[in-house]
Amino acid sequence: MSRDIADVLEDAPSNWGKWGDEDEIGALNYLTADEVLRGVEAVEHGKTFTLGVPIGRPEGDPVWPGRTGADHYMELDRGHFESGKFELAGSGGLEYADDVIYMFLQGTTQFDALGHVWYDDTLYNGFDAGTTKGGMEKCSIEPIADHGVIGRGVLLDIARYMDKDWLVRGERIELEDLLECADEQGVELQPRDIPIIRTGWIELYYEEGDEAFYGDEFDEPGITYSEDLVEWFHEMEIPAFGTDTIANEQTVSDETETLLPLHGALLRDQGVTFNEINRLDELADDCADDGKYDFLYVGSPLKIVHGTGSPVNPVAIK
Amino acid sequence: MSRDIADVLEDAPSNWGKWGDEDEIGALNYLTADEVLRGVEAVEHGKTFTLGVPIGRPEGDPVWPGRTGADHYMELDRGHFESGKFELAGSGGLEYADDVIYMFLQGTTQFDALGHVWYDDTLYNGFDAGTTKGGMEKCSIEPIADHGVIGRGVLLDIARYMDKDWLVRGERIELEDLLECADEQGVELQPRDIPIIRTGWIELYYEEGDEAFYGDEFDEPGITYSEDLVEWFHEMEIPAFGTDTIANEQTVSDETETLLPLHGALLRDQGVTFNEINRLDELADDCADDGKYDFLYVGSPLKIVHGTGSPVNPVAIK
Amino acid sequence: MSRDIADVLEDAPSNWGKWGDEDEIGALNYLTADEVLRGVEAVEHGKTFTLGVPIGRPEGDPVWPGRTGADHYMELDRGHFESGKFELAGSGGLEYADDVIYMFLQGTTQFDALGHVWYDDTLYNGFDAGTTKGGMEKCSIEPIADHGVIGRGVLLDIARYMDKDWLVRGERIELEDLLECADEQGVELQPRDIPIIRTGWIELYYEEGDEAFYGDEFDEPGITYSEDLVEWFHEMEIPAFGTDTIANEQTVSDETETLLPLHGALLRDQGVTFNEINRLDELADDCADDGKYDFLYVGSPLKIVHGTGSPVNPVAIK
Amino acid sequence: MSRDIADVLEDAPSNWGKWGDEDEIGALNYLTADEVLRGVEAVEHGKTFTLGVPIGRPEGDPVWPGRTGADHYMELDRGHFESGKFELAGSGGLEYADDVIYMFLQGTTQFDALGHVWYDDTLYNGFDAGTTKGGMEKCSIEPIADHGVIGRGVLLDIARYMDKDWLVRGERIELEDLLECADEQGVELQPRDIPIIRTGWIELYYEEGDEAFYGDEFDEPGITYSEDLVEWFHEMEIPAFGTDTIANEQTVSDETETLLPLHGALLRDQGVTFNEINRLDELADDCADDGKYDFLYVGSPLKIVHGTGSPVNPVAIK
Repeated sequence: MSRDIADVLEDAPSNWGKWGDEDEIGALNYLTADEVLRGVEAVEHGKTFTLGVPIGRPEGDPVWPGRTGADHYMELDRGHFESGKFELAGSGGLEYADDVIYMFLQGTTQFDALGHVWYDDTLYNGFDAGTTKGGMEKCSIEPIADHGVIGRGVLLDIARYMDKDWLVRGERIELEDLLECADEQGVELQPRDIPIIRTGWIELYYEEGDEAFYGDEFDEPGITYSEDLVEWFHEMEIPAFGTDTIANEQTVSDETETLLPLHGALLRDQGVTFNEINRLDELADDCADDGKYDFLYVGSPLKIVHGTGSPVNPVAIK
Repeated sequence: MSRDIADVLEDAPSNWGKWGDEDEIGALNYLTADEVLRGVEAVEHGKTFTLGVPIGRPEGDPVWPGRTGADHYMELDRGHFESGKFELAGSGGLEYADDVIYMFLQGTTQFDALGHVWYDDTLYNGFDAGTTKGGMEKCSIEPIADHGVIGRGVLLDIARYMDKDWLVRGERIELEDLLECADEQGVELQPRDIPIIRTGWIELYYEEGDEAFYGDEFDEPGITYSEDLVEWFHEMEIPAFGTDTIANEQTVSDETETLLPLHGALLRDQGVTFNEINRLDELADDCADDGKYDFLYVGSPLKIVHGTGSPVNPVAIK
Repeated sequence: MSRDIADVLEDAPSNWGKWGDEDEIGALNYLTADEVLRGVEAVEHGKTFTLGVPIGRPEGDPVWPGRTGADHYMELDRGHFESGKFELAGSGGLEYADDVIYMFLQGTTQFDALGHVWYDDTLYNGFDAGTTKGGMEKCSIEPIADHGVIGRGVLLDIARYMDKDWLVRGERIELEDLLECADEQGVELQPRDIPIIRTGWIELYYEEGDEAFYGDEFDEPGITYSEDLVEWFHEMEIPAFGTDTIANEQTVSDETETLLPLHGALLRDQGVTFNEINRLDELADDCADDGKYDFLYVGSPLKIVHGTGSPVNPVAIK
Repeated sequence: MSRDIADVLEDAPSNWGKWGDEDEIGALNYLTADEVLRGVEAVEHGKTFTLGVPIGRPEGDPVWPGRTGADHYMELDRGHFESGKFELAGSGGLEYADDVIYMFLQGTTQFDALGHVWYDDTLYNGFDAGTTKGGMEKCSIEPIADHGVIGRGVLLDIARYMDKDWLVRGERIELEDLLECADEQGVELQPRDIPIIRTGWIELYYEEGDEAFYGDEFDEPGITYSEDLVEWFHEMEIPAFGTDTIANEQTVSDETETLLPLHGALLRDQGVTFNEINRLDELADDCADDGKYDFLYVGSPLKIVHGTGSPVNPVAIK
């Protein structure tokens, strides 16, 4: 029997109203120019890492069950010219290729909009869930994309800390694990940092295939709801966090026995932006090499009107 | 009578082979860690600007003729729960919204892949245009997205320099205009910079509507092919450049009387990445205010397998 | 000032409840095996006519404003084989082409589902309009497609009767016109017939182009609401009717000064199925030639789950 | 080791050139008005059966491996009105629902165009396979849809004849089986008939689910290439045939050890139209009841420009 998420989170910390009744970006309000500068100051040697996964591989992409990978079609390529279907008048021989994509906005590395998940018929900051009908009138990804997610990122390489290629299906990460991992890495977690948690889980998909990844039941490892964890996010004023899993948290919570309670406690209650499905191994290898785990994090989703989320290719600059 | 683009560009500078036969990112090779650091050093006060335009506005988006704006659909919203079409088992009352998009990959603020445009049946670096059939086997956006486009950006606010809201339909910008604009702005253009050229043209779309923008014939203002201009790009080792127009150059060249010759001379011959359809007015206002025209530019397109380009929301950090 | 459609139709005839509370096919219930045989008996010489318009022409398709024509993409063609993107293992050299379509279900010749249009928050037969959220739970096209629309069709060639290539923009057709046209054609309209009304309007699109067709304001000619017309449909037990316009009726009614009131009076109140956007000129020429205006009509939309309508290519067998 | 299909079919009968060099409908040319009348004469009691399968079921549709079922989205429903996203000016309170579909043209009950499958770089009637690039320039579904597929259909209920619910995975049906089944059913197969072969296979999908249907390897039962079978089709001047499987023939031929050789021998060489993925159980039950196995068959695919095939909902009128 699963518990009612509204009961579980009854006394959990909330940021509703903190930035006014019309606020739709939540804890990203913490990311002021000062925090951007703090991120810039973390840059040392100029190495860059792009954290997005490939989109539309013929062999498939990792997605939440029920979603499908992106479909990509050529609207124009050299074949159209060869078969006489297209000619570019006045181009003096210039030709071009063009294409379309059909995809779930959350079917790849992405940011969740704050209105993506809710309970009690109410989105972040008290907006009525009825506003989602036909598109996110409130708390869409658009204001997040206008603002950008830019600050000091810190990699927490839990897989390496636990000495594993990837965590076990459904394995829980405790707050303590995060803190001890940071300690062992020799990096200080500061208020308003953007934690990037590596479980290795997405690498399982690319290295062992989709059957190994999805298993009999979809059940990702990750952090989950606990009083101390959501308090820590609140006190640390965490604006956003990322992982290399589809949903950024343990699929079925050990604690609440419900699906994805942190989407309630962090996204909906605190307005913390979720950056999901990153590929972190190259960044992690580099951090292990040079012992430097912080960086300028630049996450810049697309300004999709009424979108529940947006594909993104986050950048880490060390 | 338009001239043959292959003749026009016969002696134009080329970067083919410079980074090996298999290179697919061209002048982005210039963006080394040192150049990233040079971009980071341009940051002073931590203000950020996101340059993407909104995607999928119900009233339409500005696109190249023949393309259409993005279509966005809810796969799940509160309405599905109300009408009993969906229930989330085991969620304890958590609900969510989900959505899909169908769009031209170049139907918004985007980067062109180096293989997007060609002539003489040959893409950048000598790859056969036949490789585009069914998807960009070579010179797709994917290697560009793997690398990222990160360096020192410099705004050249030509509209303000010419004291106009926006340039006139089809108006040409000369190399001299760029250089004198930089001078007047008091900013030094350095090798390997990423010039961001503001014509005001896209603002015409948003302020006066699509009839004013498209006119009787689509004919954007911008730079165009000239010997000195393509030499300057080559000598300055320009890795990428952006504008606030759909195609980054005068639609029909004054000089060659052909369509978009710079897509041949810069994209295909030199491997210079094009960042098109930016919204630059807020950034420009800020630069006019504080007199600071350079910034860390972070362009991070999506890793779309076989894509001719990718939507992107570039970030300028001042 | 437009009148409230609910007031206009307060005393209009209704078929709600006639075939039980769960009925979703309305007046198609009239099309029993006997009516099918009556249609079959109308066949004389075996000539056939397909009434659908082409779908996905590169130059565009005629649609209701706001909809767009179909987009068609090759998922596989000879180009994919040439560029090495696909190989068919074990086929002994057999190759194939495959494709996808993205389209409005009502963006071509189609049938409306009975739930497609409503007022007073209530669909045909009293179903709650809230059931449409996320897909037509009730009165979708699926039950109509299960049943088929098969009976005796009668062409009413109003354009020829009025001696015009096509009716004038916004022109009204009265019930009298229908009856006198039938008389002049020498064909008897019988109960449970499927009238196919030719205005010539869609031919304007194909012959003079989209500007001539759409004009400054979309305003099609056709029949419209009047007491006697909706009574006639009711008494004659008309199961379905077709036209060569986008919406089967005068766009803005002369009578009610509202948009498309027959969609309220016939589709929603009487459960009459609408077959829109047919191409009727070949059939009409043949009927004028041989003086035979009745035929076996076979309309067989697709069984689209939750669909508001379906593309169809109706057949007339004379 | 599979054999080369071109070798296998070297001496197989062909209809190329029979109806002129520009013919794109092949054996449908046999379906003259006389054959339509022969079909009409088969009608006795007016019962109708629609043979299409549902499209876009939330739980999935049966498709050829690599294709996906249809995706259906509401562009407008009651939810959009409730959340204030849409208002219909001048409608007097009329509201409506609208929707789009994204689907494989062959992802449901469909007709193959004659150019859908080829070998030796050549389509039916000698057209170059290069004409398929970017869309079927030749032998698309459009001319077939213009013509319609209308004639005398005959059900061959092989499953019932073999006393099975459905044939075994990969089971072969011989020409003799077809002829003996007709005999046992007491129906005469006449030249230019449209045979509809029931294997029961698609019922396995709906009754036992997709795992049972797809198995470890996709391997459907059906007829396959043999000299006598393709001769019989040729001599009988079969214009089209249908089945209740995805591809109308044994997936891997017992005889040629290649994939789908009948697509070469019948579709490409003889120009026989394939009608795939029908649901035949209701029709079959009725035929078993009344002992009448022939009917007027009306197949009317959509006029999709450049399409490799089209969804269709065939009708049988007994």
